[in-house]
Amino acid sequence: PTVDCLDLCQMLTAEPVFQASKYGSLWPLPQKVQISEVSFKLSSASFRIVDAKASSAGPSCSLLQSAYRRYYEYMFGSAKKQWGSKNNRRSDPSDLTELQVWITSPDSECDGYPSVTSDESCEYLLFLVHVMFYRSLETFSQLVSEDEYGAKSINATIINDFPRFQHRGILLDSSRHFLPIKVILSNLETMAMNKINVFHWHIVDEQSFPYLSRTFPQLSEQGAYHPYTHVYTPADVKMVIEFARLRGIRVVPEFDTPGHTQSWGKGQKDLLTPCYSGSKPSGSFGPVNPILNTTYDFMAKFFTEISTVFPDGYIHLGGDEVDFTCWKSNPDIQKFMEQQHFGEDYSKLESFYIQKLLDIVASTKKGYLVWQEVFDNGVKLKPDTVVHVWIGGRSDKEMSNVTAAGYTTILSAPWYLDYISYGQDWQKYYKVEPLNFEGTDEQKKLVIGGEACLWGEYVDATNLTPRLWPRASAVAERLWSAKNVTDIDDAFNRLSLHRCRMVERGIPAEPLFSSYCLHEYKGV
Amino acid sequence: PTVDCLDLCQMLTAEPVFQASKYGSLWPLPQKVQISEVSFKLSSASFRIVDAKASSAGPSCSLLQSAYRRYYEYMFGSAKKQWGSKNNRRSDPSDLTELQVWITSPDSECDGYPSVTSDESCEYLLFLVHVMFYRSLETFSQLVSEDEYGAKSINATIINDFPRFQHRGILLDSSRHFLPIKVILSNLETMAMNKINVFHWHIVDEQSFPYLSRTFPQLSEQGAYHPYTHVYTPADVKMVIEFARLRGIRVVPEFDTPGHTQSWGKGQKDLLTPCYSGSKPSGSFGPVNPILNTTYDFMAKFFTEISTVFPDGYIHLGGDEVDFTCWKSNPDIQKFMEQQHFGEDYSKLESFYIQKLLDIVASTKKGYLVWQEVFDNGVKLKPDTVVHVWIGGRSDKEMSNVTAAGYTTILSAPWYLDYISYGQDWQKYYKVEPLNFEGTDEQKKLVIGGEACLWGEYVDATNLTPRLWPRASAVAERLWSAKNVTDIDDAFNRLSLHRCRMVERGIPAEPLFSSYCLHEYKGV
Repeated sequence: PTVDCLDLCQMLTAEPVFQASKYGSLWPLPQKVQISEVSFKLSSASFRIVDAKASSAGPSCSLLQSAYRRYYEYMFGSAKKQWGSKNNRRSDPSDLTELQVWITSPDSECDGYPSVTSDESCEYLLFLVHVMFYRSLETFSQLVSEDEYGAKSINATIINDFPRFQHRGILLDSSRHFLPIKVILSNLETMAMNKINVFHWHIVDEQSFPYLSRTFPQLSEQGAYHPYTHVYTPADVKMVIEFARLRGIRVVPEFDTPGHTQSWGKGQKDLLTPCYSGSKPSGSFGPVNPILNTTYDFMAKFFTEISTVFPDGYIHLGGDEVDFTCWKSNPDIQKFMEQQHFGEDYSKLESFYIQKLLDIVASTKKGYLVWQEVFDNGVKLKPDTVVHVWIGGRSDKEMSNVTAAGYTTILSAPWYLDYISYGQDWQKYYKVEPLNFEGTDEQKKLVIGGEACLWGEYVDATNLTPRLWPRASAVAERLWSAKNVTDIDDAFNRLSLHRCRMVERGIPAEPLFSSYCLHEYKGV
Repeated sequence: PTVDCLDLCQMLTAEPVFQASKYGSLWPLPQKVQISEVSFKLSSASFRIVDAKASSAGPSCSLLQSAYRRYYEYMFGSAKKQWGSKNNRRSDPSDLTELQVWITSPDSECDGYPSVTSDESCEYLLFLVHVMFYRSLETFSQLVSEDEYGAKSINATIINDFPRFQHRGILLDSSRHFLPIKVILSNLETMAMNKINVFHWHIVDEQSFPYLSRTFPQLSEQGAYHPYTHVYTPADVKMVIEFARLRGIRVVPEFDTPGHTQSWGKGQKDLLTPCYSGSKPSGSFGPVNPILNTTYDFMAKFFTEISTVFPDGYIHLGGDEVDFTCWKSNPDIQKFMEQQHFGEDYSKLESFYIQKLLDIVASTKKGYLVWQEVFDNGVKLKPDTVVHVWIGGRSDKEMSNVTAAGYTTILSAPWYLDYISYGQDWQKYYKVEPLNFEGTDEQKKLVIGGEACLWGEYVDATNLTPRLWPRASAVAERLWSAKNVTDIDDAFNRLSLHRCRMVERGIPAEPLFSSYCLHEYKGV
């Protein structure tokens, strides 16, 4: 007896029952797909992924070469018959023997980093076996099907694809719990399978400071859960960035101040505000101390390092949830408030700090993202600032306000995946329409995407991956596919297969509902 | 920004913050513990677990020998310095070099199976380094601590321990999703770490029939998700039972009828009731057909097999959630109702079926458990029947009724672990008091325990283990420890360490709250 008799009824009626979608297992659904009846066979012994003659990127492009290898592995990984000698490579007339990858953009990103301006659109004809952008390899691999003899084939297909939103991100939090590198890499792989292109790395917070700074090593020495086993060394960070780059994923680090900084204070004397109990320091500390010059000297040096360590054009500066209690208790802060004529409005003090921080970061030539409070408090922002909307309940109003003020924005409020509930909550995430707020067409254009957030209070290496996938896949399709892709039954059918594909590729993505995968997860 | 600013506040106030418990990492808490200040060192090179001279079980007891090995591994698993030659085994006067295991019961269960009458009580003095029951090895291993040099030690301790409830179970469901053997074994290991002694194997249900029956192989041939990759062969079942036996865990299989049987119907013609749409069969099927003799012939043969395959004294017969719609639609059933003078009361037909089933199973000399509906419908039960209370909301009333009628009962209603919610829901499970219902002392004695249920709609190999642990650990302590062990802060402190110990032993048990383990989970 599982759910007070609802169980059977649900299965037979309310709950979607799996049926094959005409789009097979494609996820996220491309913008335009025409699958023909003509089928080609794919032989692991002869199939090759090659650079098209006219391609602007050749064999020296290691990014492409490693993508070819990865997708060959995904498609034929479990194949018994392996690549043979030339003589063994007999090929049928109905075989598809070559996938030509034709990179047209002059900047092939072979050595560069993906950026906000990366062109992810592509068009391809499988008759011509051309793929115009290496991200299409994922789509190609999703079109390959296996019959009951294990034979692989693919139908001739015309696809014209591009993402609806440019910023499709996932936030992981490595402060509440330390996330071993292995977990981060494995989730970057899965992001690529879902065409997610931004890894928002919420790397430090109150609870711990695992980022090993070259300039201020004492921050992690004192602020990490453990100075050796629970830190990200420069080599680790580099590896994460390179692993992401090879998969077309930007790494946007977040260093959240002036709140959420308890762990910073352990290694950096005088950075945080001493709280007072009556006329004496209580021994505890509040947000970053905004009235000391040393604070800004520190921030300038710190963010200069960050701007070189992280190649992406943007840094997330946080700025959320600043608690004024401690500032209010401190007599030096009170004096400063008077001098500045801030009255009793501590949000003015907050803005004072943020303004100076933004100027510091701007001088490193980076753009920045900030949580919505920074906008709400009227801080003067550079025009290219991205405002990150996260507070639930009235987020549509906030989206209106932010875009009316002319700021670019990304949405996370409906996609807090750390909140869990019984049942198929992916449907709730899937049904969100990011542009469903009052505003002009101009305003809507300022919404460049969104992020699924998996905050770390209840998540670590033991449960992160199955908790994130395939729930974040729902967000991935919402942000990639056309606005009218809203058929929840078709989504269920495709997503069921997509999640089994992730499982087959070694990712413990959890089930949507009672069902099975041909190849179940091999781990525990 | 994680939880609308509640996050920091929670961490600093409402949420328990880790502090060392005076009981260290003991879980579940033994009935009586006195930990002295006297500490012994434990050397991986010299420490041995041996049979005490007076023990009734010797080196031929393979159950004990494999337990010794397991716990040596748990305690010294990561030790660099391994067991050396006799010469290397220098021992300090303060070393504890031997743990003597003294089995006193004449039936040492070396070759037998754990049963409802197994004595799990034990008393031990670490001064004398005697352990009276091999389950105490778990307790012993939990008392071993490691200092910052990696040196292991244990404090002299007197423990008198026994479980408050005899039946401490976990239900896993291998029908909604097939659970690979590896997952089941790994969770049996974890059950032993939590002193859970019953594995309630809800092996088949509507969705699939993975049990490969020797007598009726077509049941899984047709009813499993896949006849080869998604079945439990006789060898698999035997392995599960033996693995459980070595850890003092009973395996109680459930074959639920007459409802929850769609998958049975695929391989067994005429077993299920044909539903009618007007005067014609609709093509769909309902519960087991209770009016055919062939049904009872089948059940007799089937349960004869089950009674030999599963050595435990009990079988769970289900009997829950019978939907009468299909029975009502069938003209043959209607006729039978008339002949039997059942009127319109289909619960009488249900009871008719169950009564005959119980007689069949009783003839195999097995006891049985049934879900509460069987009792509610007034079926005549053998006095040793165990009634399993699962319906939420008024389960205290049900507990009163069942025990007032003189039946033994186990409780699951508050422990449906498939229901998930944000936050520390283990506390909710922990706070349950199973005897909190109206009734005499005699009635209370009839409550022999409970089970945590992890139904399988949303659970498979990808997410089962972190979803079950340490949430089921809360139930484990409630069922083992004394009634007055209710300090939630102390529980938090011990459980935090207990969960890290499970992680260190290779089990992906999820975190309670923001924190870290010295050795984080190594998987993904």
